[in-house]
Amino acid sequence: MLEICLDQEGPLSWPLQIYRQIRTAIMAGSLRAGDSLPSTAELARHLAVSEDSVSAAYQWMGAEGLLECRTGASARIRTGVREVHGTGDPVAPLGLWADLPKPPARLTTAPEYDFRAGVPDTHLFPRDTWLRLLAEQLATMPPRLLVYDDPRGHADLRTSIAARLHRSRELRVRAADVLVTNGSQQAVHLVARVLLRPGDRVAVENPGYPPSRQSFTSLGAEPVGVRVDSEGLVVDEIPDDCRLVHVTPAHQFPLGVPMSLRRKLDLLAWARRRGAVIVEDDYDAELKFTERPLEPLHSLSPDGRVIYVGSFSKVLLPMLRLGFLVAPPALMPALAKAKYLTDVCTPSVEQAVLARFLADGGFADHLRALHDEYGARRGLLIDILARDFGDVLTLVPSEAGLHVTARAEHDMWPLVRAARRAGIWLYSLGDFTDPPNSAHGLLFGYGAMSVEAIEEGLRNLRAIHSQKGMK
Amino acid sequence: MLEICLDQEGPLSWPLQIYRQIRTAIMAGSLRAGDSLPSTAELARHLAVSEDSVSAAYQWMGAEGLLECRTGASARIRTGVREVHGTGDPVAPLGLWADLPKPPARLTTAPEYDFRAGVPDTHLFPRDTWLRLLAEQLATMPPRLLVYDDPRGHADLRTSIAARLHRSRELRVRAADVLVTNGSQQAVHLVARVLLRPGDRVAVENPGYPPSRQSFTSLGAEPVGVRVDSEGLVVDEIPDDCRLVHVTPAHQFPLGVPMSLRRKLDLLAWARRRGAVIVEDDYDAELKFTERPLEPLHSLSPDGRVIYVGSFSKVLLPMLRLGFLVAPPALMPALAKAKYLTDVCTPSVEQAVLARFLADGGFADHLRALHDEYGARRGLLIDILARDFGDVLTLVPSEAGLHVTARAEHDMWPLVRAARRAGIWLYSLGDFTDPPNSAHGLLFGYGAMSVEAIEEGLRNLRAIHSQKGMK
Repeated sequence: MLEICLDQEGPLSWPLQIYRQIRTAIMAGSLRAGDSLPSTAELARHLAVSEDSVSAAYQWMGAEGLLECRTGASARIRTGVREVHGTGDPVAPLGLWADLPKPPARLTTAPEYDFRAGVPDTHLFPRDTWLRLLAEQLATMPPRLLVYDDPRGHADLRTSIAARLHRSRELRVRAADVLVTNGSQQAVHLVARVLLRPGDRVAVENPGYPPSRQSFTSLGAEPVGVRVDSEGLVVDEIPDDCRLVHVTPAHQFPLGVPMSLRRKLDLLAWARRRGAVIVEDDYDAELKFTERPLEPLHSLSPDGRVIYVGSFSKVLLPMLRLGFLVAPPALMPALAKAKYLTDVCTPSVEQAVLARFLADGGFADHLRALHDEYGARRGLLIDILARDFGDVLTLVPSEAGLHVTARAEHDMWPLVRAARRAGIWLYSLGDFTDPPNSAHGLLFGYGAMSVEAIEEGLRNLRAIHSQKGMK
Repeated sequence: MLEICLDQEGPLSWPLQIYRQIRTAIMAGSLRAGDSLPSTAELARHLAVSEDSVSAAYQWMGAEGLLECRTGASARIRTGVREVHGTGDPVAPLGLWADLPKPPARLTTAPEYDFRAGVPDTHLFPRDTWLRLLAEQLATMPPRLLVYDDPRGHADLRTSIAARLHRSRELRVRAADVLVTNGSQQAVHLVARVLLRPGDRVAVENPGYPPSRQSFTSLGAEPVGVRVDSEGLVVDEIPDDCRLVHVTPAHQFPLGVPMSLRRKLDLLAWARRRGAVIVEDDYDAELKFTERPLEPLHSLSPDGRVIYVGSFSKVLLPMLRLGFLVAPPALMPALAKAKYLTDVCTPSVEQAVLARFLADGGFADHLRALHDEYGARRGLLIDILARDFGDVLTLVPSEAGLHVTARAEHDMWPLVRAARRAGIWLYSLGDFTDPPNSAHGLLFGYGAMSVEAIEEGLRNLRAIHSQKGMK
């Protein structure tokens, strides 16, 4: 039995309303396979609409496989809804995802004193230059590159990155060795996809950078935490069966110690002996506050076992999501395929903008300005820590990056919690160990704060520490 | 035996030169563990530099673990290079990557007549508006969102997309159901990572979109091609053990046929019975050239088994890499983790720009303009194909998108090859079947060409066909 009721006021056309109501009746089971519909003329008369409107609806229903329209005969419903019992599994993700922690919550307001590690000052981003270059590139980039650029990255950017790496990190690489990624996280992800089988073991630093470790876990591999001492990763403690090692040699995350050259040579020898691959995550190395070389593993490697990962997050903006990797030729075709199948390509216009910025010297100037500014903040921070926190904290020597770490004799969790309540946002060392443990150390990022804010923040922190009578 | 030779002209400081040359000697084995170095005073005198320069170099070598510096005694080399034989495996990607095809080559020049499917007109991109919104967002976005935005997507954009989907596709979804991705390719990738174990079988359309199929293969799953007929995917031929089905119901890629409602209901019932998940890739549905509803599977699904995937590639620019997925609540936490561990987040400024563009009505206006322009091109293309190619090609009915497909009685490869040599870039149906087969059909994209170019290109194509005496 068909009842159609047209809405005179709504935005939907007659054919659409007729179609919808018949469709709903079929899906609800009140019209069944074999049921006849009135002829188009009849229904049109009944609804007081044109026969064309009914015909259109019937034609759609024919195209949708719902109606058999026979010339000279009434139309007949062709299909009914099959009774289906939901015998199948409920929709659920693979089990491993339940074990992985949720991404860190986005702050809903900026902390008053932001000592978080790895947070750069967004006010130092060269906004006007960037916008000017964006307008230029959007106007001049060939249309074909706005439709489809090379999955390995925009050609000019790969060239600029190779040149920059030669100058700043002594890497002898060609543009063909560079693959542009959406930040260093994606670089690690792509490497893991190309090299790791489920169950493969991966050595990661402990304490270390949780998202790298978790990235391996999420692909079914098994990260193994390896201790870090004053010379960096303790190479002798890497299990023999690791297929990959992820390290941050220039500025170990989170401790800040550079890996000693002796340890680097040991690591390269280990990888060679075991047939393993090293992922060198140089996330912070563009900001180096020493003349000491801090030579990348990549530049010391004799046999192409090092994949170098870099990022523009700290020196431009994290949310530009621009990073890269440098890989041996044997891996590049697979990495290009993995990048293509993951997300086709990194956005091309932003790549072209960065290429220009690197090539025309703007980046080098920008980096010098950053270096001065962050150097001043870092110097002040270190001085105050030595002067006012010498009884509580011992600075870990470091030479680069956007944060320093200080070790403590006692658990700093009570101080961290009290500080956060007072608007001072700090990480503790315990946030970066696996499993998370007591916080015998603090991280002090100096990227997001002015020198005044650093002074004030540390003064407040000291006051909290004293008030609480913390040791 | 230590020989140091300083370069007076080069850019490197004395300490750096001294350090480098001793380091090189150690790595080359000409200095060995236990060897003594001259005292700082002695070496300074010998090189005619200040003792500070030598001290700095020695200190670095101490920090690098290479030198034992003892007060009152000469410094001694602490480590030598361990002889290492490369007993390990060479660096090589997993075997599955060798079997996957290379990404399509980037065109080095634009084809004169560009009939490729899925290529929009970059000249229609609203460049000035986009740049204005970019400048606004860069100036006004809170710094915290330039450092770290929600991995699920910028809040305003998720809201705008949910609202847009309700209006244009009748999806009843909340912002919380939306996850922003770097284009639809990444959406498919994330879904596959969250749901598929190695070896899991996935039903894909055949002919279909190769990068989706390959994305499943690259994660160790096993795509199974399922036939497509005039009502879309032939649901009865889906193997029972498939855990996932990837379909393009609004505009089947590459054929263009919309999936009939009858087939949609069958597919939903199948998924429910088997406990499977459907990925509905609605890549082209914003450009619809019919009043017929083409209702998304998602809007018909009673039990949350459909993941809806959308993209702004065709209606803005492919290389913006902006897309999204809509997933049931049971999957969203895992998808957010997968997105975070893949690349942290889609670039935030561009997300905020798109959110504004959607919210302030600019997008709706833009889409109307696209609709008129592409509608005119499409109409002309279809008319010419009917008029001039009726003896060779039969158009496949379609209602949406940026290309049409025409079937042929004979293999069209000779024509495709000859056309490409003459600057007419066409895809054949054989490019999208698995395994690739003879080309009994052609795709005609109308996104990248003016009406004049379409007329001229088809005239030339007809001439090539006639000259060659092709059937």
